[in-house]
Amino acid sequence: MNSGSARWRSVRDEMGRRGIKALLVTHLPDVRWLCGFTGSNAALAVMAKNAALFTDGRYTAQAKEETRGARVAIAKKSALKEACALLEESAGHAAFDPGNTTVADLGLMRSAISGSKRRGFFVALDAPLISVLRMVKDADEIALMQKAARLGCRLFEEILPRMQAGATEISVAAELEFLARGLGAEGMSFETIVASGARSALPHGRATLSKLPRKGFVTLDFGVILNGYCSDMTRTVHLGGASREERSAYDAVLEAQEAAVSAVRPGATCGDVDEAARGVLRKAGLARWFTHSTGHGVGLEIHEQPRVAAGHEIRLEPGMVITIEPGIYKTGQFGIRIEDMVAVTEKGARVLTPVTKAWIEL
Amino acid sequence: MNSGSARWRSVRDEMGRRGIKALLVTHLPDVRWLCGFTGSNAALAVMAKNAALFTDGRYTAQAKEETRGARVAIAKKSALKEACALLEESAGHAAFDPGNTTVADLGLMRSAISGSKRRGFFVALDAPLISVLRMVKDADEIALMQKAARLGCRLFEEILPRMQAGATEISVAAELEFLARGLGAEGMSFETIVASGARSALPHGRATLSKLPRKGFVTLDFGVILNGYCSDMTRTVHLGGASREERSAYDAVLEAQEAAVSAVRPGATCGDVDEAARGVLRKAGLARWFTHSTGHGVGLEIHEQPRVAAGHEIRLEPGMVITIEPGIYKTGQFGIRIEDMVAVTEKGARVLTPVTKAWIEL
Repeated sequence: MNSGSARWRSVRDEMGRRGIKALLVTHLPDVRWLCGFTGSNAALAVMAKNAALFTDGRYTAQAKEETRGARVAIAKKSALKEACALLEESAGHAAFDPGNTTVADLGLMRSAISGSKRRGFFVALDAPLISVLRMVKDADEIALMQKAARLGCRLFEEILPRMQAGATEISVAAELEFLARGLGAEGMSFETIVASGARSALPHGRATLSKLPRKGFVTLDFGVILNGYCSDMTRTVHLGGASREERSAYDAVLEAQEAAVSAVRPGATCGDVDEAARGVLRKAGLARWFTHSTGHGVGLEIHEQPRVAAGHEIRLEPGMVITIEPGIYKTGQFGIRIEDMVAVTEKGARVLTPVTKAWIEL
Repeated sequence: MNSGSARWRSVRDEMGRRGIKALLVTHLPDVRWLCGFTGSNAALAVMAKNAALFTDGRYTAQAKEETRGARVAIAKKSALKEACALLEESAGHAAFDPGNTTVADLGLMRSAISGSKRRGFFVALDAPLISVLRMVKDADEIALMQKAARLGCRLFEEILPRMQAGATEISVAAELEFLARGLGAEGMSFETIVASGARSALPHGRATLSKLPRKGFVTLDFGVILNGYCSDMTRTVHLGGASREERSAYDAVLEAQEAAVSAVRPGATCGDVDEAARGVLRKAGLARWFTHSTGHGVGLEIHEQPRVAAGHEIRLEPGMVITIEPGIYKTGQFGIRIEDMVAVTEKGARVLTPVTKAWIEL
């Protein structure tokens, strides 16, 4: 990937700004983003001038093929400890990510440093480093995410005819996932949500053996993984005739969702975008049923920085990809959520999931 | 579940033995195993006489329905910090699992304790507690795992006719996963492995768009999740006529696998079981191609304690469920792996995945 060297440069620039001489990277999506390696065991030692990826013998061939910007070392015992030993040789300290390092692993890391240097050798980053750089996607990443999102849109269109009263939620999820695989998805970004009837009021209603009702909402929230990147989208459709309350609630959620999409632009804070959705629902008297935040970053992981939530001050920048997904959940009655994936552009927002959000009655 | 109260008792007994007055449980499979709650945000405060599960507003209804043995508290802000505040009120210290707690979360936990008590309040368990108890499954769990394993066996039988030269690995995986969903699986235990031809020499060969060859091995390694419990099995079949080398290698792997299954009994160490497999492959001159350990525990997680690896001294006990999965990987040529899930019984072992391991040529 052309952008590989730009990523290395951005990490070293940021290390320089923060006065960090060496960095240990162990969170697998961070490892993949920076050097390309996709195996399940990795510790990446990043120094000012060079870098080394430590993994184990299962990945000898794969690591050499995939890794850019770092030499590959096959650890005899522990990839983590051998990476730490190299860091000790190379620098007087090393930074690590406390949000992705267990207390036990920190103990292992320390045990690899000789006694005299151990105290204070590992320094917890006081603010995330790679996850913050990963918020802004480069052109290669946007292109991959656009592909993943388009696949999601196509799946929604293909699954619509199968959403019939009497079909189980699981059968809908199974069909959707089968189609996804057939179209090249490596897997799903998360457990597919098919929540029908009163279950649509569960924000995280996994597909069950419940049958789709003759009358009521069905919420479909799913994503695919394509080339490592996640898509994420939600649509809510109605089976049978809807009540006036259901229809007006849908219109309010859609208006809230579109208002939030319109609020996406460089310089806007995440809190501004959340408020755009929440304000519409407040006016409609529905805000108390909107019990979660408006969205989240997405990329190699399904949930990334930034959180699009009330009061969050992170400012949007071109290249960020976030979800916009307000919803309302009237327990025991019904729920509605509408979600797009949106890329921040120089001018505003580009919706990566342009499949219809208009009222659908099946 | 009847066995719920026995699990609570076993945890409190173990806390008593170790002199632990209070325990913070945050690893989600541990939470589920102990109190039944399956949500994605949970902090469980376990004291000598009572317990409280903290989660957030998304799970109000679900937490009340699922949770046994603990009161449910919906956190206003952070479930983790509110659980810690309760622990501070209830005890002079609290143990936590350093293998499943990030350095950042430990910082949050400490920030919830008032200054005077903070120092030394949280004590890292010096040996795993719940994961060790979870190694030995109760009768309810064995029954659920048997169901999951049987579903796996049925899937293998149903997918065999689809394994034809020219089909892509991904299409085989997609069919398998679709069938699994149709038979009630909540999902797959891990990314389905379909590794064909020279790719069978990759121990973790995810399904790709590669086509199944006219001649060569195909390794199929997959598992389903049913009622939260994982199954895991591997079979390797051959398409077209096999060479003498391929056939004799298969026979050696099968002999190694059966030797390891025969070595499973209460009192045997995990190292003994590993050696049973490794010894057979050593005699056949193939041990250098057997580059991983023989197996692992399985349950609510696909990889649990114990590891069935060289030199590991944990002794098997009735109720443990482990995989037995020796394999050989001749890079650039072919690979073979055969895996069963096995429950340790009073007398020896019960294979939970009794589908044929005999040579199959398609």
